[in-house]
Amino acid sequence: MSTRRLLIWCPDRSGIIAAVTGFLAERGANVLDADQHTDPDDGSFAMRLEFEGDDPTNDFMPLAQRYAMDWRLTDASHRRRVAILVSKQDHCLADLLWRTRQNELPCQVACVVSNHRDAAADVATYGIPYHTLPVTPDTKPQQEARLREILEAADTELVILARYMQVLSADTAAAYPNRIINIHHSFLPAFAGAKPYQQAHAKGVKLIGATAHYVTEQLDEGPIISQGVAPVTHRDGVDDLIRKGRDLERTTLAAAVRAHLEDRVIVHAGRTIVFG
Amino acid sequence: MSTRRLLIWCPDRSGIIAAVTGFLAERGANVLDADQHTDPDDGSFAMRLEFEGDDPTNDFMPLAQRYAMDWRLTDASHRRRVAILVSKQDHCLADLLWRTRQNELPCQVACVVSNHRDAAADVATYGIPYHTLPVTPDTKPQQEARLREILEAADTELVILARYMQVLSADTAAAYPNRIINIHHSFLPAFAGAKPYQQAHAKGVKLIGATAHYVTEQLDEGPIISQGVAPVTHRDGVDDLIRKGRDLERTTLAAAVRAHLEDRVIVHAGRTIVFG
Amino acid sequence: MSTRRLLIWCPDRSGIIAAVTGFLAERGANVLDADQHTDPDDGSFAMRLEFEGDDPTNDFMPLAQRYAMDWRLTDASHRRRVAILVSKQDHCLADLLWRTRQNELPCQVACVVSNHRDAAADVATYGIPYHTLPVTPDTKPQQEARLREILEAADTELVILARYMQVLSADTAAAYPNRIINIHHSFLPAFAGAKPYQQAHAKGVKLIGATAHYVTEQLDEGPIISQGVAPVTHRDGVDDLIRKGRDLERTTLAAAVRAHLEDRVIVHAGRTIVFG
Amino acid sequence: MSTRRLLIWCPDRSGIIAAVTGFLAERGANVLDADQHTDPDDGSFAMRLEFEGDDPTNDFMPLAQRYAMDWRLTDASHRRRVAILVSKQDHCLADLLWRTRQNELPCQVACVVSNHRDAAADVATYGIPYHTLPVTPDTKPQQEARLREILEAADTELVILARYMQVLSADTAAAYPNRIINIHHSFLPAFAGAKPYQQAHAKGVKLIGATAHYVTEQLDEGPIISQGVAPVTHRDGVDDLIRKGRDLERTTLAAAVRAHLEDRVIVHAGRTIVFG
Repeated sequence: MSTRRLLIWCPDRSGIIAAVTGFLAERGANVLDADQHTDPDDGSFAMRLEFEGDDPTNDFMPLAQRYAMDWRLTDASHRRRVAILVSKQDHCLADLLWRTRQNELPCQVACVVSNHRDAAADVATYGIPYHTLPVTPDTKPQQEARLREILEAADTELVILARYMQVLSADTAAAYPNRIINIHHSFLPAFAGAKPYQQAHAKGVKLIGATAHYVTEQLDEGPIISQGVAPVTHRDGVDDLIRKGRDLERTTLAAAVRAHLEDRVIVHAGRTIVFG
Repeated sequence: MSTRRLLIWCPDRSGIIAAVTGFLAERGANVLDADQHTDPDDGSFAMRLEFEGDDPTNDFMPLAQRYAMDWRLTDASHRRRVAILVSKQDHCLADLLWRTRQNELPCQVACVVSNHRDAAADVATYGIPYHTLPVTPDTKPQQEARLREILEAADTELVILARYMQVLSADTAAAYPNRIINIHHSFLPAFAGAKPYQQAHAKGVKLIGATAHYVTEQLDEGPIISQGVAPVTHRDGVDDLIRKGRDLERTTLAAAVRAHLEDRVIVHAGRTIVFG
Repeated sequence: MSTRRLLIWCPDRSGIIAAVTGFLAERGANVLDADQHTDPDDGSFAMRLEFEGDDPTNDFMPLAQRYAMDWRLTDASHRRRVAILVSKQDHCLADLLWRTRQNELPCQVACVVSNHRDAAADVATYGIPYHTLPVTPDTKPQQEARLREILEAADTELVILARYMQVLSADTAAAYPNRIINIHHSFLPAFAGAKPYQQAHAKGVKLIGATAHYVTEQLDEGPIISQGVAPVTHRDGVDDLIRKGRDLERTTLAAAVRAHLEDRVIVHAGRTIVFG
Repeated sequence: MSTRRLLIWCPDRSGIIAAVTGFLAERGANVLDADQHTDPDDGSFAMRLEFEGDDPTNDFMPLAQRYAMDWRLTDASHRRRVAILVSKQDHCLADLLWRTRQNELPCQVACVVSNHRDAAADVATYGIPYHTLPVTPDTKPQQEARLREILEAADTELVILARYMQVLSADTAAAYPNRIINIHHSFLPAFAGAKPYQQAHAKGVKLIGATAHYVTEQLDEGPIISQGVAPVTHRDGVDDLIRKGRDLERTTLAAAVRAHLEDRVIVHAGRTIVFG
């Protein structure tokens, strides 16, 4: 008997919760945590169940079909294989490695890939493979092909863009649907694109933000998983915004990665449901 | 068919969710929202269901008995009768009246009771009865008896202490278990008792707080429903803390009252579960 | 001897603080509060002084000229005359009136102007003149001329757009430079324009915001004075965002108005300095 | 010409700012930043000046004497020598080391001292001396004497208790007045003493906090420099509070250390002034 998680989303119909929890009860499973959301706008149903019990996958299929469910079942003891992509700024990388070692993030870091060598020594102290893939406009397609090979060879289940300053191609994005998490250093949709702290300073905002989201083919447009903000004042120059932003980026990204790894996130209609 | 809310708490056992949701499905009820919590410390189970359907009270009793449930079933269309108690500071009172009129708080204000006359004119503009019960050490027992008569005559279902600066007697507290909400102007358990903003200033804290809690016989010790904080600096004197605190008190109290009126709160082992 | 406030901004030069505080000391003034900011980007200097003393205006002019100062001197005991403009949503209006009566905002409300009658009765209980100016596309120019007459007749020193859903003409905006404060119900520059809560919901953000700013001829583009945010989840529909947003709008607008009335705001290069 | 910082606190008298800034102007110094606070309660004056200029120490003494000033003058280019004390929990240590390497904290870590060996390997990668001083009730006095020798030998200017779970003796505390910063894992004065997260969970609070303060002879009672909070719910067990608290402790401690290193903190009457 393992702890397992079942995520379901489908059109709402009367009796779904009873059908699913009845199914589990018949098999001797014990529900540890249940959360559910019905969207009043489009009548869709979403549910997350955490339960102790045997793997019910085969038996569950007919039920899933009857209710036209999309669903996902995971074993909570499995530590997913994660690839972290990074450029020169290493604060999010350092934070993720530290949290993983602390068991704050239930995953294993399979590899780190960067277009720079800067973080190689730090990553080496964790005994994690580090791949340097320098990118120029000319080499970009071939390096991105190489990147995909590395991700595949590492059996990557989740890709984290931890301040990776290259835009992924549509092909790479499509290869990991809702399994690439990016941290953008602004309160999206404000200040999308490049140099958001400079934009924020020029605008004179009184709060800065960070946004973690799934990567889609549209740059900075994917479903938002978590956001954070911090107050700033006229005393804060661009350098201060960058410094304060680092703390925001670290905690906002870690919150999103944790929610993903705990199977708390469902993407529906371009938005996320993040079960608490 | 009305929208109804079912709150359940009992020892955890396998199959409870299936039993309850199956019971509702058999009666043609449609679950709109479900949230559940199992306490890993003491093995207790709590659930909140919002559903559309007929009143299942009679049929539900055997099921409730089988699982040794405490439970409560309400009709979401019923606007509970609320009594607001206030002294001289009227900011929480004014806020509650305004929110009720705006339909932010699904209740009806049955009466306002105060040991001062200050707020009488404002309350009159809302067409709500206002009772002045001046309290001195000598008259306290008899005025509190009068207070209980007023509450009973008004069919009061919830009492809100909106900066009421008198300590309720144990008898009155016991007459409305988990149905009296107080706002305390500090981040409890810090600065319990009198003059919390003066205490906070003397201590030199960098954040002030407010706490809404159910009233029990122990002063400032009841189960916490909601808390809020705001940053302060060395520039803030006691008057500034009081001013900043007013905003905290208003929003923290309103959040607690709203959670109560929407049947989101279960008290268990001296703490609250507040379903989101 | 009154409490006075001196606001200065000019190109930075060595010795300005000494020159100004020396000038005041020679006249027997006592500085109660001093704050200063030098912008490292453009070398501009800004200072706010609060002092007790006689009016030094005439003597100060040569000094101001020597340092090419822009400056403003106010008497802290003067309660500025404020006009509040509102449409149907009255939460910001109700909040401002209540705070003014509580002496949280050191001003007098000279009049309320609205394109609807909805708030007339509430305003009447405060004994404040209420002008209804219904606006249609055809009558807009003439009604805006009438609005300016009302503002002038009331000796208006500050105009507050408390959820006024009409765009002011460039002429009206220009008549009160840095003296019209608007509350926009989003975290600008995100969701500028109409229906920001609908935009925020469609985007699936995890935080909503409000922004108080001075009105310029560019809609939703003026210098930001204060911003606030609140967390939201997938459970929050548009109505919930609107409800949560009301609290944000009230506190964010009140903070901006208070900073303005206490002469804490300097506009420089399209951004604000807000002294703490 | 270096950037220097002058901190002054003394009884308030008319003309102090003019006297000090005039003194600096005469010596050709250029003020970069000035902030000032007068305490209305006890009539004390405090000021922080950042200026470019030569060292005015000798000339300044008569002026300081005339106004009965306490004062401190520092060279902003000097990186203070810091000793970090830690036990088994290393999150604050790791964070401080990382921030120092990033130049977020303008200091040099002279040594790390711990009563456990756990963090030795990580500290070694930074090339910083690590001293293990196991403490038992019997060896405590002699180990604390050894600790003081280590601190002195390292020319320590600031001691940081980064989750050091030993109480320092009164002697050690007195040897570094207002130069030992501790992080306490609660929102002081709530939950002072041991196991604050367990206390917070038992109480059922809805927010947890962390407090950075100067160490005095009274345990958990020294002047507060910074505080942080994070929301928690009934879903959070003690382990979740500990995890969420780690982030709070890191950022709250770093903020306090940064304020100290930038000479922004004055201790007066048991409270701090922290210039922004």
